[in-house]
Amino acid sequence: MPQLGLLPGRAWAALLGQLLRPPRVVCLGAAHSHSQVAEAVLASQLKPRQEKSNFILKTPKGTRDFSPQQMVVREKILDIIVSCFKRHGAKGLDTPAFELKEMLAEKYGEDSGLIYDLKDQGGELLSLRYDLTVPFARYMAMNKLKKMKRYHVGKVWRRESPTIAQGRYREFCQCDFDIAGDFDPMIPDAECLKIICEILTGLQLGDFLIKVNDRRILDGMFAICGVPESKFRAICSSIDKLDKISWKDVRHEMVTEKGLAPEVADRIGDYVQCHGGLSLVEQMFQDPRLSQSKQALEGLGDLKLLFEYLTLFGIAEKICFDLSLARGLDYYTGVIYEAVLLQTPAPAEEEPLNVGSVAAGGRYDGLVGMFNPKGHKVPCVGLSIGVERIFSIVEQRMKTFGEKIRTTETQVFVATPQKNFLQERLKLIAELWDAGIKAELLYKNNPKLLTQLHYCENMGIPLVVIIGEQELKEGVIKLRSVATREEGGRERDRELETSMREKHRPAASCTPPTGDVPATKVAIKRENIVAEIQKRLFES
Amino acid sequence: MPQLGLLPGRAWAALLGQLLRPPRVVCLGAAHSHSQVAEAVLASQLKPRQEKSNFILKTPKGTRDFSPQQMVVREKILDIIVSCFKRHGAKGLDTPAFELKEMLAEKYGEDSGLIYDLKDQGGELLSLRYDLTVPFARYMAMNKLKKMKRYHVGKVWRRESPTIAQGRYREFCQCDFDIAGDFDPMIPDAECLKIICEILTGLQLGDFLIKVNDRRILDGMFAICGVPESKFRAICSSIDKLDKISWKDVRHEMVTEKGLAPEVADRIGDYVQCHGGLSLVEQMFQDPRLSQSKQALEGLGDLKLLFEYLTLFGIAEKICFDLSLARGLDYYTGVIYEAVLLQTPAPAEEEPLNVGSVAAGGRYDGLVGMFNPKGHKVPCVGLSIGVERIFSIVEQRMKTFGEKIRTTETQVFVATPQKNFLQERLKLIAELWDAGIKAELLYKNNPKLLTQLHYCENMGIPLVVIIGEQELKEGVIKLRSVATREEGGRERDRELETSMREKHRPAASCTPPTGDVPATKVAIKRENIVAEIQKRLFES
Repeated sequence: MPQLGLLPGRAWAALLGQLLRPPRVVCLGAAHSHSQVAEAVLASQLKPRQEKSNFILKTPKGTRDFSPQQMVVREKILDIIVSCFKRHGAKGLDTPAFELKEMLAEKYGEDSGLIYDLKDQGGELLSLRYDLTVPFARYMAMNKLKKMKRYHVGKVWRRESPTIAQGRYREFCQCDFDIAGDFDPMIPDAECLKIICEILTGLQLGDFLIKVNDRRILDGMFAICGVPESKFRAICSSIDKLDKISWKDVRHEMVTEKGLAPEVADRIGDYVQCHGGLSLVEQMFQDPRLSQSKQALEGLGDLKLLFEYLTLFGIAEKICFDLSLARGLDYYTGVIYEAVLLQTPAPAEEEPLNVGSVAAGGRYDGLVGMFNPKGHKVPCVGLSIGVERIFSIVEQRMKTFGEKIRTTETQVFVATPQKNFLQERLKLIAELWDAGIKAELLYKNNPKLLTQLHYCENMGIPLVVIIGEQELKEGVIKLRSVATREEGGRERDRELETSMREKHRPAASCTPPTGDVPATKVAIKRENIVAEIQKRLFES
Repeated sequence: MPQLGLLPGRAWAALLGQLLRPPRVVCLGAAHSHSQVAEAVLASQLKPRQEKSNFILKTPKGTRDFSPQQMVVREKILDIIVSCFKRHGAKGLDTPAFELKEMLAEKYGEDSGLIYDLKDQGGELLSLRYDLTVPFARYMAMNKLKKMKRYHVGKVWRRESPTIAQGRYREFCQCDFDIAGDFDPMIPDAECLKIICEILTGLQLGDFLIKVNDRRILDGMFAICGVPESKFRAICSSIDKLDKISWKDVRHEMVTEKGLAPEVADRIGDYVQCHGGLSLVEQMFQDPRLSQSKQALEGLGDLKLLFEYLTLFGIAEKICFDLSLARGLDYYTGVIYEAVLLQTPAPAEEEPLNVGSVAAGGRYDGLVGMFNPKGHKVPCVGLSIGVERIFSIVEQRMKTFGEKIRTTETQVFVATPQKNFLQERLKLIAELWDAGIKAELLYKNNPKLLTQLHYCENMGIPLVVIIGEQELKEGVIKLRSVATREEGGRERDRELETSMREKHRPAASCTPPTGDVPATKVAIKRENIVAEIQKRLFES
């Protein structure tokens, strides 16, 4: 290590880092050229503190906020997914957002460059988690667990380059389900595929297909085609791109960038075109070259058993053995799978178009062992649901069908047509809250009745209680439905009209209705109002 | 800026940073001295890949995993909190885990040093969020929103030094509720205090107290005591430590470190000892010195109004006006509050002991404006629940009472007493899953019946279906309760005994029971089993 003066290394690095950092061009307003930057920096320094914030107001590149509307959609999706995980007996687990940098090393192959590191501010070197699988394996090894069935819903972070992967996020949510433990072959694996089917069916995303392959079949295929063993993982990464780029381009990458002989690439090309069901598994058993590989035969044997279990689960027709499926991550050791949505409706006699992967996973029997000082292994198999793509589809569909989303769950609104009734409103709403009723009021001393009723309309609040001078005198409170669902829009219009008329009527006319709309507006004794609302909410 | 050769600044910084980084001492096994480190690094490099992972298996300092048991507790707590937020009409919102570094600048005063920065890997400079309030203000300004009532549950990160704040986490979960918008005074503020009361009551954490003060009263107090205006925020930070260190130490810090005249400090000392209810507010109105401050009078006026609303909400006796409450964060502008749990039972005639803050918040009318280029303000008030401390208390209580926590929700277990029944079990469990029933089986071809029943016992699974040769022949499936709740432990023992006897009985004896324990074990026709289980689950 070079000696650089008297300061300790770390202090030097910090000092120099500080001196050498260029001005923050990225975040300054419209400053593009060097002179503009210099000007903006000067201007920023000369301005008083309050006007200083002339940076672009945005979230970091590749990230986004979830608005209340989006939150409702996301929570519905997550609810369906987590319910399924719980239906299969999974326990919950949570791990920190960052791990020691070492924990993530040598796990992700070519993708390792996408890991976010934290700045060295003294202490440990940390990285944001890249997936939920490696933290799970670390947890298993750290707690010396031999088996566990767990789910984990959480954010992960990847420095994806938007030029390569457009539309991908740098912060996204993963929903993982994994089964760790030494069990009989293919039973947990089949359950993982069953879970993917249940979730994709439950989310009503249209027709889908799950491609299945096995790392051992891939490795066997590479070996008999003449790929040197040192290039297995690199060639795997190339094959993995087949769903994004053509065979021609993949072949070019393998030959030019990864130094594969053209005839070896062509032999691989013959295999990766194959896809089918159980019959293809049988056919590959008979393949004169592939059947020479012990590894490939093991993989094929397991796939055969897998198809037997998938048939018992009633999902075999959703599964396709696809020799082009490779999966990018380094840690897979056995069966791998990836679910794709099919464009619907598919034009007759045409193959349905692949609109992208929404779930994936596989077997990784070596990962927990990588964290164990003695290398003790815990076999694992699991799956990960890609929520962002599902979210986009569901959001798009809701827009198409013009579905209106309620962003609050408020059941009752506390209103008044008169001035100086804040005290009464506050007393009443506290009673509602204390009874567990979801209630709101406007934070104004003297709001207009129409403003209050419009708020209910806009927010989709079903019930409104109205208290005024007359009601206070008579010891009653008016309770009305904001919109009578049975009678639809016209009734709602009438309601609003009524409310507008009421606004200009003298207080004395706010008496209980005579019976023409008994279901939508009644006067309830003050002491019974909570019970009455609870009854109404229970009935609806 | 100094010119250092031909490389661009950023490349230089990266290169030097790399050269100067010391070896990763922290994460290597038991290596402490320099020679040990060198040896460990060398050994690590010479070892084959599999044995290389000789780092300590741990989560980063100040972070932790949540085990399935802990997840259940955490989710129950979060459920109570979120239900309350929804009861008050809040919408959900989510923001990224990190923000542009600039967004967090000048928001946290002396605490800014605790912000986690991300490493500069090219592109934007980023920091992990320090709280949920600043991202909320950024969201409001970015979307040009004028009002919003939102809740946000999410992790935040702070590089707390464990020597100062023991037991604090560097990653922790916050539950925030905020009301943004220009409303009539103290109505949203009172609702925030009501929410804190509802949540702390709902969580059954014992007696609590909410301290209330106002930044304007504090500033007025500082002014009339003779604190220079430039030192207001710094003195605020010192006062904020009064719940952790004595007045003597705070006074010492103010005089020695922050350069306050001793007599000024003593004048402050007279005030910060004051705490009480509405009567103290009235008393302060009469205070000959404080009443000279226009700011302080405004704060006192608002506090008086606040107490009026708190009385209507029925929570005035939980609130204490406390002149020593200061809150550390820079952005507060008006009322501030902090909820503390009181040690129960408090010894007679002694003041109950403060066991720590579990919720806090206040008014911050300037924060959104800091993000607006023209400084347009959106007044805000909000609260944050500190889940970690609540979690520790609930977890401790559950340990004390020996409450057993179920970590899964499985309703039915599919078992067999015989070999070669995997196919039948798989077919049956798929039917259960498809009917929405939470079901599990063991991932073994031929598990022992006792192992299966023990699994049910351990996991608290209420129902077990048993299928064997005889049942298959007769077209029935046995359904039994794992533990009959009405009959308690003795019945459970009999069940297990029976199961052990059955294990060694010939299959033919597995006929439907004759009626002595009809509620716990019955044979159901194969085609009716799903409906029967659904009926049982609905009834229980």
